[in-house]
Amino acid sequence: MKIFIVGLGLIGASYAEGLHKNGHVVYGYDQKIENIKQAIEIGFIEKENHIEQITKVDLIILALYPKDNVIFIKNHVNLLRPGQMVTDVSGTKAWMMNEIEQILPEKISYTSHHPMAGKETNGFESRDYRMFRQANFLIVTGKRSVKKDQDILRLIANNLKFGKITVVDAKTHDELIAFTSQLTHVLAISLVQSDHLDETKHATGDSYRDLTRIAKINETMWTELFFENKDALLLKINDFMKELKHVKELLLVEDTESLTTYLKEAKEKRKSFDIH
Amino acid sequence: MKIFIVGLGLIGASYAEGLHKNGHVVYGYDQKIENIKQAIEIGFIEKENHIEQITKVDLIILALYPKDNVIFIKNHVNLLRPGQMVTDVSGTKAWMMNEIEQILPEKISYTSHHPMAGKETNGFESRDYRMFRQANFLIVTGKRSVKKDQDILRLIANNLKFGKITVVDAKTHDELIAFTSQLTHVLAISLVQSDHLDETKHATGDSYRDLTRIAKINETMWTELFFENKDALLLKINDFMKELKHVKELLLVEDTESLTTYLKEAKEKRKSFDIH
Repeated sequence: MKIFIVGLGLIGASYAEGLHKNGHVVYGYDQKIENIKQAIEIGFIEKENHIEQITKVDLIILALYPKDNVIFIKNHVNLLRPGQMVTDVSGTKAWMMNEIEQILPEKISYTSHHPMAGKETNGFESRDYRMFRQANFLIVTGKRSVKKDQDILRLIANNLKFGKITVVDAKTHDELIAFTSQLTHVLAISLVQSDHLDETKHATGDSYRDLTRIAKINETMWTELFFENKDALLLKINDFMKELKHVKELLLVEDTESLTTYLKEAKEKRKSFDIH
Repeated sequence: MKIFIVGLGLIGASYAEGLHKNGHVVYGYDQKIENIKQAIEIGFIEKENHIEQITKVDLIILALYPKDNVIFIKNHVNLLRPGQMVTDVSGTKAWMMNEIEQILPEKISYTSHHPMAGKETNGFESRDYRMFRQANFLIVTGKRSVKKDQDILRLIANNLKFGKITVVDAKTHDELIAFTSQLTHVLAISLVQSDHLDETKHATGDSYRDLTRIAKINETMWTELFFENKDALLLKINDFMKELKHVKELLLVEDTESLTTYLKEAKEKRKSFDIH
């Protein structure tokens, strides 16, 4: 397949390298010319790489920040051709998909997806096409999805060695992500910010370090992600606060039995995540 | 050194095996005779192992649940001899240390410590003397501490390859642990319990799994730990809630700039934990 990847950051560059290794012909665009040069030198982007190649490819993968994906499509819509497919790798969907669906000309299909893998570092230099192994892969259908889109995305997912593939709509996606991804980052941040002791550094075990590792955040990207999915995220924060208040109540009234049961339930629920 | 370890669970058995490998003579006690038998068979507990050996050792390490440590000392106080040292590996200190300090006869010193390492599984079978490598080690001094206690605990810590050793009093210890250990477990539990979607399992990335791994909890032990340190834990829950509410406010009023700054601060603070 001929693939054009827009944005050679952590995900875009990892996709480019991984898909090239699977025999696809890969072109790429990045604001930093240096990244494109390096990608060509390493060899996972074609030598005759320029923006007009978009007209020739089968698949366009948007891997910029959500807002920038919309702007890119707006500015390059004249390069798109009937029969092409567009997808993106963004962390929030409903808002952006709606925008892109309105811009795209007829006969160009668009199905979004979300690779559930990441790293604490970002940018071209951090790329690693092996980071997707066994990770969850969400296909997110919309108004412009056609049947063949799913086959193409399943091929991409298999090439990059993703694990479980699940198909959802944009609203469900955003609610899921608000919970599994955005809420978790909000909790990690809040936990780090609630540290008021000097000796904390020398009193941490694995638990504190595990829970706060994702606090090493790309603050620009995550602020944008939080706001783009604000409503779902606020609901999830409230759900979480309800449970935390419940634990507080059980502690206050010294209800040992209910707290033990509550802990046991959580344990069983979490354990079920380890069996796929 | 001659060492008697009370309780051959995860920590006790790991200590026994690790300390034996460092040339110490190790005796042990466990409610499950089977564990003692196995430990003797594997060879990290002496063959002529019986409870009266307590009278002969230099160091007694209590590795039962906090309450059971107190009961054990109460029931076996007649076996203790002047010059001996007692320590324990419990996760909360102030309450238990106070109890033990009152029971111990004169001329027996007592300095507590806390190995900041753990596993999701527990019991004799889960033992692993390598689990302490580079982990934090807190020495917790009290009314019955004497100078040589710290030297002995530093030797134990070095034998087991612990990393940073920090000396604190019981109150500071409990406040630190309320934050780094108990609060983190409360958050993990609350997060798992606030999951209300069917597809969550297939929409998790590393972040959700990392944040909830410790929800696979020993519910009996942790309920006890939570209650023994209730006051400090409730304060830490409140501190955390304050931060979480702050994030919620910033989202509601759409204050992008403040949220970005807040995330950046958290990132820098968390990063400083990786440099020792």
